[in-house]
Amino acid sequence: MGALDEGHYNVVLENGVKLGGLEQEPETIAIVDAVKLLLQGLGEDINREGLRKTPLRVAKAFQIVQDALFPEVGVEHGKGQAGGAGGLVLVRDLNLFSFCESCLLPFQVKCHVGYIPSGQRVVGLSKLSRVADIFAKRLQDPQRLADEICFALEHGIEPTGVAVVLECSHVHFPNFEHVFLDSNHERWVKVVVGSGSGSFEKDDSASWLDFFGLLRCKDVSLDNIHARTTVQDSWCPSQSHSRLGLGPNSTMTSAVASIIQSLGQDPCRIELTATPNRYVNWLMNFKDSNLEMKLNGFSSIPLKTTVGRINYKEHVRSENNLSLWSLCEHHLLPFYGVVHIGYILGEEVNSISKTLLQSIVHFHGFKLQVQERLSRQIAETVSPLLGGDVMVVVEADHTCMIARGIEKCGSNTATIAVLGRFSDDPAARSQFLQTIPSYCL
Amino acid sequence: MGALDEGHYNVVLENGVKLGGLEQEPETIAIVDAVKLLLQGLGEDINREGLRKTPLRVAKAFQIVQDALFPEVGVEHGKGQAGGAGGLVLVRDLNLFSFCESCLLPFQVKCHVGYIPSGQRVVGLSKLSRVADIFAKRLQDPQRLADEICFALEHGIEPTGVAVVLECSHVHFPNFEHVFLDSNHERWVKVVVGSGSGSFEKDDSASWLDFFGLLRCKDVSLDNIHARTTVQDSWCPSQSHSRLGLGPNSTMTSAVASIIQSLGQDPCRIELTATPNRYVNWLMNFKDSNLEMKLNGFSSIPLKTTVGRINYKEHVRSENNLSLWSLCEHHLLPFYGVVHIGYILGEEVNSISKTLLQSIVHFHGFKLQVQERLSRQIAETVSPLLGGDVMVVVEADHTCMIARGIEKCGSNTATIAVLGRFSDDPAARSQFLQTIPSYCL
Repeated sequence: MGALDEGHYNVVLENGVKLGGLEQEPETIAIVDAVKLLLQGLGEDINREGLRKTPLRVAKAFQIVQDALFPEVGVEHGKGQAGGAGGLVLVRDLNLFSFCESCLLPFQVKCHVGYIPSGQRVVGLSKLSRVADIFAKRLQDPQRLADEICFALEHGIEPTGVAVVLECSHVHFPNFEHVFLDSNHERWVKVVVGSGSGSFEKDDSASWLDFFGLLRCKDVSLDNIHARTTVQDSWCPSQSHSRLGLGPNSTMTSAVASIIQSLGQDPCRIELTATPNRYVNWLMNFKDSNLEMKLNGFSSIPLKTTVGRINYKEHVRSENNLSLWSLCEHHLLPFYGVVHIGYILGEEVNSISKTLLQSIVHFHGFKLQVQERLSRQIAETVSPLLGGDVMVVVEADHTCMIARGIEKCGSNTATIAVLGRFSDDPAARSQFLQTIPSYCL
Repeated sequence: MGALDEGHYNVVLENGVKLGGLEQEPETIAIVDAVKLLLQGLGEDINREGLRKTPLRVAKAFQIVQDALFPEVGVEHGKGQAGGAGGLVLVRDLNLFSFCESCLLPFQVKCHVGYIPSGQRVVGLSKLSRVADIFAKRLQDPQRLADEICFALEHGIEPTGVAVVLECSHVHFPNFEHVFLDSNHERWVKVVVGSGSGSFEKDDSASWLDFFGLLRCKDVSLDNIHARTTVQDSWCPSQSHSRLGLGPNSTMTSAVASIIQSLGQDPCRIELTATPNRYVNWLMNFKDSNLEMKLNGFSSIPLKTTVGRINYKEHVRSENNLSLWSLCEHHLLPFYGVVHIGYILGEEVNSISKTLLQSIVHFHGFKLQVQERLSRQIAETVSPLLGGDVMVVVEADHTCMIARGIEKCGSNTATIAVLGRFSDDPAARSQFLQTIPSYCL
């Protein structure tokens, strides 16, 4: 009957992530010991911080899967693959998010996970998603995430083969200094990674052919999957930033290192050593600076006090799709999107350059913000330049909406600020809103 | 730093739905008492089953919002609306699901919720989603859901106005008897509802103009919002089914009534009185019947025992996009999608009618199923008709993936079953897979 009652989240808790006393149960201990042996076989130190909790995590993932293995016969007569013996099962388009171990920002993942049943058993479909979620919700690198999901399912289901393909998107936040210069800044860094075991072990296997045949994504194929040999070059855009050498505030970097440690990770792990520096450098973009905005050559126009509707001789002009980058002060998580500015082109008001408006947006974006305040501040700054009748619309994706509790992928927020005669003139507002193109980042 | 630790779901638990001992706190009791007064003012009996928990639920929603009200100034000089005083804030495209009070099946909701701040306060954006979720996760009707979200936000935020628009999609499950006849069965019943308070009270208000200006959905406007006067005609497709009068098994209907009672709802509430009948009628579609499939006029072709690749003279033929309706035996929740059948058109094999293949799919769909078994059963049934070399692909949306715990909207599952020479011939499988159009329900 589904999640009708509010005890719903308890179910998630029991089946999904928190397993409570299960850590002491003999089955759990047996799996933990086995995973330790596997890790030692890989030449790893099982006591290092980064690995300490891995066996328990893997044990949890196994148990989620094992609790949901159902008997299912295979082909009954003749030759074939289907049911609980052969026949690919593929769950497509699972939305996950994870956190980049290189810069601590969240990244989005579209996860496709498949397996080929064997031993007359199939696994409950939602369990594939639960297992993927467990490994996503930690500091990760895309390839490791794919490998860990694959490893856990391989050992939990014991199928003929397991395959995982992840389409990962990492927001490419510009530095404060560069954002004013680089008008064509790419918003996303994307990478596709894959991991396969059993019949998916070889890249040219028939199983992969079936997998991509079912995926039918034009832009995802074996050919464009990030080659494993180059994974050492992190995909994280923060790695290419030149400021890294400057050596940021050491109190702040120590604080970030201690957060990483509190998350059960070893700050000395090679992939994590520069993470505090990178995160602090990124954060310092939002330091409340005393920069004065120089509105070169543009003098303020005396604010009019006119009220009422906009004169029919005047024209509503708009400057749309200015890029926005900012940091949500409630969660210290990024939000980003576009800003649209509407104003009245009249006798006293000339249009002003898009570059200047874009600079004003960046100026207000690069501090700790909430979208409502940002909209107001942009409106108040552009108002004296544009004759006092202005309307600002901000449309943004908030990382906190996917990476905190509610996990509402695909939602976004629009805010409006109006000054002067736009306040009294719904028709003028509507006229401006109609000029705004569809929102799509 | 977001949901890096696995304590993540605890946060959901505390902030979101379960509030533990809060029920005894004086603030909660005060809100509960106030809501009771409001309900009495509406002429309602606050002790009837359906309303008994409403005051506490509303109190929880209020507290979620009130914990996240942040001071935010409005326009500082001159005339305008922005920040914490005026200026619409709209969160768009929140994916929710709820349960139809008329038939107990889940329905999907795309929720747009907006408010106009006042009193120099704004609310944390994710809280709008949390409040919507609280009211969605019960037996609902779209208009009541919109009204309840609106009411809770109005009293929690005390803004200038609140507006809620819900785009609801209810799966239109056919009856077993009709599905064989009705080849153009519509898969969805859709309705758009709205609710507004304060400055959104009047349908023709300037605030609604702004709201729809920001929504910019071509197919959602004030004009096509379900008129309130006709909401008495339930949107639920089960209400139009003629079988209702037959009077299903009374032990089963009593059982459903007791489930409804366990969910804190009064089975005697007018909207719920016929729900057990409708649900049982729907469920009886999936009774494991002794129906024999009559493959009129089609004689089986002796199964070939050939192995190896498919002869170059033979052609891979496919019959794609056969409708599928079924019931997941793990959750008793629907799954639905399309089936594609590939086979080899050779000397002995003629193509067979799409109608017959569609009937075979329905025959196997209308029972308690798992997708893997369904794929195998369809393959084994069509195999003797199609010369023994067949491939079946099933693509389906599983309601359990959105309505149970993991809530992965947009994901779907593909399964493969292969018999005969398709087993050995990846190229033939690939050739068939390429004929399948993009999956989109």
